[in-house]
Order: sequence, then structure tokens, then C-alpha cells
Amino acid sequence: MRMVGDMRATTIHAPYDIRLSDVPDPAIDGPTDALVKVVASCICGSDLWPYRGENKVRPGSRIGHEFVGLVEEIGSDVRTVKPGDFVIAPFVISDGTCPHCRAGYQTACQNMAGYGTDKADGGQGEHVKLPYADGTLVATPDVPDDSLVPSLLALSDVMGTGWHAARAARVKAGDTVVVVGDGAVGLCGVLAAVRMGAERVVAMSRREPRQKLAVRFGATDIVADRGDDARDAVLELTDGVGADAVLECVGTGQAMTTAFDVARPGATVGFVGVPHGVEVPITTMFRRNVGLAGGMAPARAYLPELMADVLAGEIEPGLVFDLELPLAEVAEGYKAMHERRAIKVLLRP
Amino acid sequence: MRMVGDMRATTIHAPYDIRLSDVPDPAIDGPTDALVKVVASCICGSDLWPYRGENKVRPGSRIGHEFVGLVEEIGSDVRTVKPGDFVIAPFVISDGTCPHCRAGYQTACQNMAGYGTDKADGGQGEHVKLPYADGTLVATPDVPDDSLVPSLLALSDVMGTGWHAARAARVKAGDTVVVVGDGAVGLCGVLAAVRMGAERVVAMSRREPRQKLAVRFGATDIVADRGDDARDAVLELTDGVGADAVLECVGTGQAMTTAFDVARPGATVGFVGVPHGVEVPITTMFRRNVGLAGGMAPARAYLPELMADVLAGEIEPGLVFDLELPLAEVAEGYKAMHERRAIKVLLRP
Repeated sequence: MRMVGDMRATTIHAPYDIRLSDVPDPAIDGPTDALVKVVASCICGSDLWPYRGENKVRPGSRIGHEFVGLVEEIGSDVRTVKPGDFVIAPFVISDGTCPHCRAGYQTACQNMAGYGTDKADGGQGEHVKLPYADGTLVATPDVPDDSLVPSLLALSDVMGTGWHAARAARVKAGDTVVVVGDGAVGLCGVLAAVRMGAERVVAMSRREPRQKLAVRFGATDIVADRGDDARDAVLELTDGVGADAVLECVGTGQAMTTAFDVARPGATVGFVGVPHGVEVPITTMFRRNVGLAGGMAPARAYLPELMADVLAGEIEPGLVFDLELPLAEVAEGYKAMHERRAIKVLLRP
Repeated sequence: MRMVGDMRATTIHAPYDIRLSDVPDPAIDGPTDALVKVVASCICGSDLWPYRGENKVRPGSRIGHEFVGLVEEIGSDVRTVKPGDFVIAPFVISDGTCPHCRAGYQTACQNMAGYGTDKADGGQGEHVKLPYADGTLVATPDVPDDSLVPSLLALSDVMGTGWHAARAARVKAGDTVVVVGDGAVGLCGVLAAVRMGAERVVAMSRREPRQKLAVRFGATDIVADRGDDARDAVLELTDGVGADAVLECVGTGQAMTTAFDVARPGATVGFVGVPHGVEVPITTMFRRNVGLAGGMAPARAYLPELMADVLAGEIEPGLVFDLELPLAEVAEGYKAMHERRAIKVLLRP
């Protein structure tokens, strides 16, 4: 039996103040609950908003929403995962039974819950208790080899999000695709577009390590310019026609403008960057028949397919993790991502 | 031989000043030209913008961009239509050979031209000369019965536009579809959604003649409310879930807001109303994964399919014409549409 205080989890207290704290031990208290022993978790770009003070922080609150682990206990109604299973947790908790979940949009679940709230523990801890285990967690057929952990962990958010961008943009075999954004999501967007059969994938990136990873993921062209120069570069690459599909993986006004600028008539901009100061150019959309689709990725919907791809060695999204730290050094992990010294940080309890 | 002044065409001189004027006779002067004797033309909602003074008017300029007729003469390079053919003219002129035309987006043609410009005559006249005949006109297999003329004429704009809204919204068999707007385009949107197999089609209309036509076109439900009440009515009809696809056929901010309000997560709003004062709710789109697609309809792309449907009696979009006038009374036609006494006016030279 564990005692209160046995467990440690990441807490945020103020901007730039991240700690590993002793917290009460979680326990199953509902029929759909699962208790998971975390094998690996990671830091998300969106975790940096409260870190930087861009989102309000409740001092001492838990944080983190991406993790994989081993099921320890389940509630009486849980049917699809059992103690000992290795599970991937998507970044939101969904009931799996409402009309939106059944339609594959679990991020619009009528009972959606978040980690680090009164509904569930934060993901950057030693254990996580969450409700709606059947609707949320997906188990691998067997406990996977440790070398696969980073790629399976990437499915909890960034790979599912990059995949969603490509799917929303309706990428198809033979397409020319532009990916705006070279964060972990943008890089996974490159990987998704390549996996969907895109013939030419243009990654917009001005940082060499990210350019290299984009190429490793299958990008055929790198554009290091921004703004009008980036647009001109893509138009030159496409004989003035533009891209068949565009993935907007940043969320800023400038990124969205570039995305629309490089889209050919009839193309769709798939957007997954949380919009900050974005004004949609509706007149351009009308005039050139460029669509906009996407949003908060239903990572849960893509988990079975992407998990199979990872286990079969078809994709290796875990390459986005370029820094691995023990959970005890979580504060350094935030600092490294904030200072852009790391693309994405993996934490081992 | 016709003499200058033999031909009459509609001209606009100032807001609310529409005339039938004597104009110089048109003549073939380029290898891709065709000269068409107009059998029927019509007045578009967008013709009302200059009529109402919302668009600047060059006094004496030609107007009209929807017509059907018989080919009289062709240029030396024209291959797909010949003198005597009955042809449908889509509302823009496209070369048919550029990358955008070949991809089915003729309204983004790199050589796109408009009627009533120095490139082509206006459509509301006795004859129309236009370039790019092969890329623009579509001929019926035989000269059709006069009873089919209204429905074939509707394909030059409103039916192709309603079809585009439904296609952009990705309507599929079994869907619940909401159509915002009860103008000729909205009504054609109802017809398109029904033809695509939608199971439930909710038409938003508060005017009885339009409600009746919507029902004749296959609408299963009519919502006469606006704003929040309209949203609530649709949510009640759909058990709180929302519509699988939404057609926005107006172009105002209120219409777009209603369209997003009634869309279920994962749905797409297909928009074809020219945007006036529309602010796209990007945060709602992100949060609920509702897409936006559409724009200026490539009516030319849909002509072969829709023409076959009209000739086979599958669809009768010509029912949107509720007033037929001789071309000599074109000014009364504009007045009737402006005052909303008519949904859409057909003109016979």
C-alpha cells in the first residue's frame, strides 16, 4: 500500500516556477476510472503558456497531459484495459459514447475532461488517475520494447495533432504539401503527409536541427524564408500554382497568412495551432476557394491506426524528442523548451 | 448582315437606372471567340449591387452574366461548340487549359474574364460575344425543348452555386443538412443536398413562397426563426447534436454565425454567399473542429453532370424563376427582384 506523500508530480506555482512536489496518492473512486503508473510523459508547447504567464496559473496546480504507462487498477465498469496493460493516453479525456465521440471527434466530447483538474491528475507525475478509461486509453497488444516508448508517447498529442492537420487539409497521394511550423507538431505533420503519400513535402524551417529532422521524416524541400519571401519560394517550387494542401501548425496570424498565401485554389489549410491573433482572410478564401479545417485534434480517434504504424516500424515520431530527463529535472525540461534548446522533452519518472 | 444598332442589350447608367439600349453589333474577332444568340438570360442577386449603388457603376456599361443561347459563329480555334448548338454559359469565362481550370476551379482561371467588360458582352442582351468558347460554354446534345430552358439557364449560376455549397460542405448520403438562406442559391442548395442523398434537409426561410419551393425541392423541415432561435430550433431537431453539413448561402455576418452555431463538431460550413462583414469565428472552429470551405462556384465544372440531371428530369432548378419578362422590360425585372417581389427573373429577348 502506498501512503499519502509517496507520490511525486509536477506542479506549477507561478510563471517560470515549476516544481516536482509530493502530492496525495491517487486512488480509484469511480467505476470508469483507471490508475496508471507513468512510464514516460512529456512537455507540450501548450504547457509553456502558463509557464510563460500567458495563461493564468492556480498556484500548486498539476500540469501535463501527455503520457504512457502501465495500468495499475481499474474501476468496476472498465472493459477495454486491464492491470498490466501498457496504455497510451490522448491529451484529453473523453467518454467514448457521446455522439461526438462516436463520430470521431473526442475533443468535442460532451463529457470531456482535462488532466490536472479536479477530474484527473496531471500527466507529468508518477501516477495518473483518470475517469472514462475505456473512452480514453488505448492499450498496445503487448508491453512494448522500451525503444518504442518515445514514438508511442508522441501519439498522445503531437503525432495525432500533425496527423489531424494533414487529414483536415485532405492530403492525398501525389500531393504537393506545405507545412508551416517546425515545432514537434509541424515535424509530425511532415511525417503524416509523407505517410499519406504526398509526393512533395515542403517544410518551412529556419533552424538546422529541425530542418534535418524534417528531411529525415521525408520532407523533399526546405524553405527557410518567412512572409512574402516564403510565399514566393513556394510559388517558384510549384510553377506559380501553389500547394495542394497546407498544414498550419503554429497558430499565429503570420503563419495563417503564409498558409493561405501558398495554397492553390481548391486547396484546404489544415490548422492545428491554437489560434492567437488570427484573422481569417475570408475574401481570399471566397475568391480562391481555399478552405480552412482542423482544430483540436481528436488524437484518440487516430490512436489505433498510428499505434499500429509505430509498432510496425512504419513511422518513428519519437524522433521529435531531442532531450530526455528524469522527472526530478522537470524544471530544466521546461527551461530547455522555453529557450528553444529542445524541440520536445521526454520525462522518465 | 446586321448593322450597328441592330442589337439591343441591357445597360446600367446609375443606381436604379437600368435600360435596354441600342449597342454596336458584336463580331467574332479572336480565334477562341463564339457569338451566341441569347435564348434566355436572367438577373442575379449580385446584379443588384450596382443597381443599388453598392458597387461603383461606369455609366452605360453592360450587365448580366447568366444566359443560354444558340451559337451563331465561332472563331477558327473553337472545337467543342459549333453554329446551331444550344449552349449554357457559366457566369465567368475561363480558358479551360490553365492548371486551375484543369483542377476544376475555373473561377480561379489564370485568364478568367467577366461579361460586360472589354473582354465579352453582358449577358442580358440579344447576342453575346465571348472568348475561350471551348473552356467556357457547354452544349446540350440536341436543341432542348423550350420547357427545359429555365432549368438549363439556372445551371449558369444559381444551381451550380448551390451545388458548390453542398459539395464544399461535403454533404453525403444520410446527412442532416441545414441551408441558411432562401434566395435562389439557397433553394438550389436544398435541391443539391437532396440530390446528394441527404436524409434531412432543414431550410431556413421566413417567406411562404420560398418555404413552399424549398419543400418542393425536398426540404424536410423549415425553420422560420433567426439568430439564437434558429440555432435552438436546429439543436432541438437534432437532439442537441447539430447538423452534419451546413450551407451558408447569404454572405452576411449573421448568416455565417448561424451557420457555425448549428454545425456539429467535425461538420463543414460550405459558403457561397459573397462575404459582406463576415468575421470568421476561428476559436469556435478550433474548439469544435468545424471547417469552412467554398467560395465562387466553378459552375463550369459541374455543368456536364447537372445538365445530364436536368435533361433526365432528375432536377428542376428552373422553378426558382417566378417571373418571366421580355428583355424590353428588364428595368421592371430589376425592380421586382430589388423589392423582393420575385425570387429570380428570367428574360426573353
